[in-house]
Formats: sequence, structure tokens, C-alpha cells
Amino acid sequence: MNSTKDITILGAGSWGTALALVLGDNGHRVRLWGHNAQHMDSIRSDKRNQKYLPEIELPDSIEPTSDLSWAISDVEHIVIAVPTKAIREVLQKVLPLLNRDVIVTHVSKGIEPDTHLRISEIIEEELITPFLKGVVVLSGPSHAEEVGLRHPTTVTVSSKDLTIAEEVQDLFMNSYFRVYTNADVIGVEIGGALKNIIALAAGITDGLGYGDNAKAALITRGLAEIARLGTKMGANPLTFSGLTGIGDLIVTCTSVHSRNWRAGNMLGKGLSIEEVLDKMGMVVEGIRTTKAAYQLCEKYEVDMPITTVLYHVLFDGVSAKEGVDQLMGRMKKHEMEELFNVLDQKLEN
Amino acid sequence: MNSTKDITILGAGSWGTALALVLGDNGHRVRLWGHNAQHMDSIRSDKRNQKYLPEIELPDSIEPTSDLSWAISDVEHIVIAVPTKAIREVLQKVLPLLNRDVIVTHVSKGIEPDTHLRISEIIEEELITPFLKGVVVLSGPSHAEEVGLRHPTTVTVSSKDLTIAEEVQDLFMNSYFRVYTNADVIGVEIGGALKNIIALAAGITDGLGYGDNAKAALITRGLAEIARLGTKMGANPLTFSGLTGIGDLIVTCTSVHSRNWRAGNMLGKGLSIEEVLDKMGMVVEGIRTTKAAYQLCEKYEVDMPITTVLYHVLFDGVSAKEGVDQLMGRMKKHEMEELFNVLDQKLEN
Repeated sequence: MNSTKDITILGAGSWGTALALVLGDNGHRVRLWGHNAQHMDSIRSDKRNQKYLPEIELPDSIEPTSDLSWAISDVEHIVIAVPTKAIREVLQKVLPLLNRDVIVTHVSKGIEPDTHLRISEIIEEELITPFLKGVVVLSGPSHAEEVGLRHPTTVTVSSKDLTIAEEVQDLFMNSYFRVYTNADVIGVEIGGALKNIIALAAGITDGLGYGDNAKAALITRGLAEIARLGTKMGANPLTFSGLTGIGDLIVTCTSVHSRNWRAGNMLGKGLSIEEVLDKMGMVVEGIRTTKAAYQLCEKYEVDMPITTVLYHVLFDGVSAKEGVDQLMGRMKKHEMEELFNVLDQKLEN
Repeated sequence: MNSTKDITILGAGSWGTALALVLGDNGHRVRLWGHNAQHMDSIRSDKRNQKYLPEIELPDSIEPTSDLSWAISDVEHIVIAVPTKAIREVLQKVLPLLNRDVIVTHVSKGIEPDTHLRISEIIEEELITPFLKGVVVLSGPSHAEEVGLRHPTTVTVSSKDLTIAEEVQDLFMNSYFRVYTNADVIGVEIGGALKNIIALAAGITDGLGYGDNAKAALITRGLAEIARLGTKMGANPLTFSGLTGIGDLIVTCTSVHSRNWRAGNMLGKGLSIEEVLDKMGMVVEGIRTTKAAYQLCEKYEVDMPITTVLYHVLFDGVSAKEGVDQLMGRMKKHEMEELFNVLDQKLEN
């Protein structure tokens, strides 16, 4: 049904590799690029990504490479799956290599501290070229390991231009990987970024041994504060009730595989931030995002109690227990006050 | 802070017992009634409910009893914590025993098949007496075991009359049991009832081994269909984003303690409905609720794919795998079509 396309995935981590598998299964010619030549050679010879997705055999339609100019040349689609903080650097290398119309899809989650830019905005800022046909975000509840095992997974793609989003939907859609479109780019990107803050906080309550009741309350109130900020930033409040909002939030907060949850869990068990970062040995996206979101809630004058408490835990030396206890104690009497009154806001405008 | 009240809890299961503990901790005089005299005697002598909440020592302020007329006499508050299908029978026994103004709070979850009444409506129908001062529902993400351990828990109380809800809020509120009010009785009761359907379905996907991605998608779409029906029935759509909506849904769908999840899990593993009911040996509320909700979605002409598929699995012999595969395959292209368009509905009205 799909016509075969040339597609490049930048970033050979677990998610980039799993998405390469989906596209390979759909008959596309996939170039999987990573900056480490040795790692890419081993993926090529092993027919699997031993480091990040060891259990999955990759089809022949996937070409691992560390040669960026070969990877970019003549491709119709680029999928960016590198860590958020590496995106600008990669885009700056990609720009001069572009030689034809291209649609760029990103699967990264975060907001840049200080600039407060979403990822699609960073892409638009860096790739100033007539070759850029459109920018798409792909997001939703999706452990890479499960996609690798071809377990049923549902995600959303979003772009300012719905026909561009539909083109990307067609690339990825198959029997186990179901793809929705949503025109609300802001809502999709804000939901994806801010869920990592709530996952950190959920890890803390679990680390403190507070149980499922406390965690469910935290996730519920977390969704409300994400929606409050997102709506102020121009998102459709309904997006936060969808796959990229509550769906992704559930997966991230209830899985021990989540990096952010694990970091929070160690904080809850009494480790210091320095000890946690040392033990993780990799990027904890939610920490940067907490900083950006804290700046945003001040800028937009939105009440974000979980983000605020977490900011003080991460950057001001407040203990995790003190922070969470403060959060549980602090509440308004009526649920609707505490919940996002976005519907009322919407009706007022 | 609270003045001491005389409060009766009807139903000495795990939830009734845990709530007795909360009220006892708050200094109230609590009569805990159960119909089984032997069981109530053992709670009295053991100072604990060995059968349903064995780890928790009960304070002296809790009086276990199987004498309904003593339990009802002169109490200011009655909390109903019996299984949904026993409610009418218990209310019919309570009615002639009432001798003073009383506020009735229920903590049950379900919709009556055929009549389609919510629990508060059943209470109003049965307790036709000038003594009935108000009816309240208490709901939210709350495993009884965790409340028993005094872990932080957050629930919502709702009543047509907010001052009545606030009176019940004051009874229960303490440092580990945080109580919100919400004026939307319909939304609170519908959310509580219908989450059991989604928990059954989540159990099935887990039983089939489909993983967290599939389950998160199912929960997200489940919330959407609950909100679609609830809004048609008069609920505030925001309530479904709160503790009694998504909060309770998360706890029920992600906990192996959930009875409905466990029943679904066995179905997913290939057992027949008869085998599952046989193994459970107790009420699976979600099965009755699926029937009621299926009737309601036909009556209100609301699209409820998960409820419909589950109805066919439970009552028409469709296999669990066939049903879920059908559900995952069936989707609209745009997320907003599939999501509840309640906001648009709201704006149109």
C-alpha cells in the first residue's frame, strides 16, 4: 500500500533503532545514522543493536552508517532521534548537506531552558533552507523494547500542515504500529516534554514508599498542571487527554524502565542529586525540563505546584521527602479549583 | 479540629474497614456493621479484620457489630460500603430503623443494569424519608490496604448540595487522607463505575502479553469513551480528568490487586468467562457494569468501542484475543475524532 521511500534516522539509540525496524517492516529503504563509527559497524555486522536493543534482529532494508553526508544525500524523510541537547549540533551539520525537499520528523522530548523553544521550533530555527518541506513531531506511549517486539503500539504525529503529518502517518502505519494525526503541535510537544517532570516526581513518591494511591493523585494533578501551562501557551486542552498527554504520562510514570522515574526513585530513597546523576551515567531529560518549565510557569503566571516543588528539590537543596509532603498537604478544598479550569478559560475567550 | 460524630459504616470489607480506621483516627465514634455475626465478633476480639485487612490494628473508637438496629440508631452519618448489588436490600432494612436526620455517604461503584440508576439515585429511591438530609459519594484512587497503612491518599466527595459534601469532607480529612469536594455527582459516579470496564479490558491486553504501550493506549481511549457517555448523561467533562476519573482509572488498571483487572487477565490468558467467575469466587463489578454501559451507549447513541467489544466478549462468546485485535485495528485517522469532542459539544450548547 505504501510506496517505498528513502528515509534517514539520525540517532541509533533504542528508539531510533525501533523506529528503523517499523519503517523497514513497511518496505522502506532506511539509513540508520549514528556518530560512533565502531557502534554502527557492529550494528551492520551483527544485524542488531547490541547496545540499545539487543533482542531485535534488524532486516536488510536497514543500512547502518556513521557517514552523515551519505545518510542525508537524496533522502525524502529525516527522522531525528538524538538526545534533545544534541539536536542543535546535529542540525547544524545536516543543513549544508541537504540537497532536496525533505520532511523532518522528530521524536525528542524537551523544552530548551532559557529560550523556551519546543523541538519543532529549534528545527525551524536551525534548518533555514527552502529544502525544508515540513516539521513533524511523533510522540505517544511507546517503550522502544515493546515496539521492537512488534507489540501493539499507538502514537500520534502532529504538524502545522496536516497533509505533511498524514504523509508521515503513512510511512509508519502498520498492523502493530498505529499512528494518529493531531493538528495541535504545541499540545503534543508540551505534553511529551513535561511528562518527564511528573515521572521524576512519581519516582520520588515511589522511592519514599508512598504507594499507588499517592502516585495516582500525583499523576492526575500533574496532568492538570501540564494542561494549565500548555493551554496558556496555545495548546488545545483536549490534547492532554490523548495519547501524547495522559497516555505517555501513564507509561512513563508506571514503568521501571523510565529513566526519569528511576532518577526520581533514587532521590526518594535519599540519594543526593549528584549521587543520582553519577549512578545514572546518562541524560535525565526531566531535570533540564524542570528548569525550563519552572521558568515558563513564572513567565505565564500559571500555578504548577509539582514543577515548583521539584525545582526546589533539584536546584535549591530541599529534601525530596520535605518537598513531596509539602505537595500532599497543600491542596484547595474543591477539586475543580485545583484541576485545570481550562474549559472555563476556553469558554471565556 | 473536628467535632466528634456518631458514624456508622455498613459493610466490613476491606474498604469499609479502612474508612472506619480513618474516621477512628479523626476521633469519631464509629460503628462498623457487617451481616455476619461471627465475623464481626472476631473483629471485636482480634481488634483487626483478619479476613479483609489483616495487617491493620483497629483503634478502640471502632465498635464492630452485626446488630443493624443498634448500628443505625441515633447516628448522624451512615457510610455504605457494601457490594453494589446488595445496596437495595440493605437500604430496605435501614429505612424503618432511621430515627433522626442522617447524611448517607456511599463508596460503591456501579450502574444498575436495566434501570441504569447510579448508586446515589438508588439511595434516593429507597430511602424515602424526611430523615434523609443528603446523599454523598466518596470516590478516588484508593487501595484500602494503603489507606490502612496510612499512606497518603486523595479522594473526592460529591453531593448535589455542596455544604453536605463539605460536612463529609470534614469528617474524613486528615494528614494522610486528603479529601476534595466536587459538585458533579454524575461525573464522579459515572467515572467510578465505568473504570471497571476499562480495568477488565486492560487485564485482557496484559493477559495477552501485549505490553505497556497497548495498555496505555487502551486506558487513554477508555477515558475518552467514559467521558463521551458521561457528558451525554450530564456530567462535567473536566471531572473525568480528575481523581475520580483518570486517577482512579490508573490505579485500577495498573494494579494486580484490582479484581476486575485480574478477571480480565484470566480472560486474556484464554480462560472462559465461566472458569474466570469460578476462580474469582467473588463479585466482579465490571461485568455487570459492562452490561449497563452497553445498554447506555445504545440509548444515548455514543460510540464506545471498548465497552462494545468487551460486551461481545463477555456475553456473545467472542474470544478475548479476537475482541482486542479488532479494537487495536479499528481507529480513526485523526486523534481528535477518536477523542471525546466534548469540548466542542460544550461550546455548541
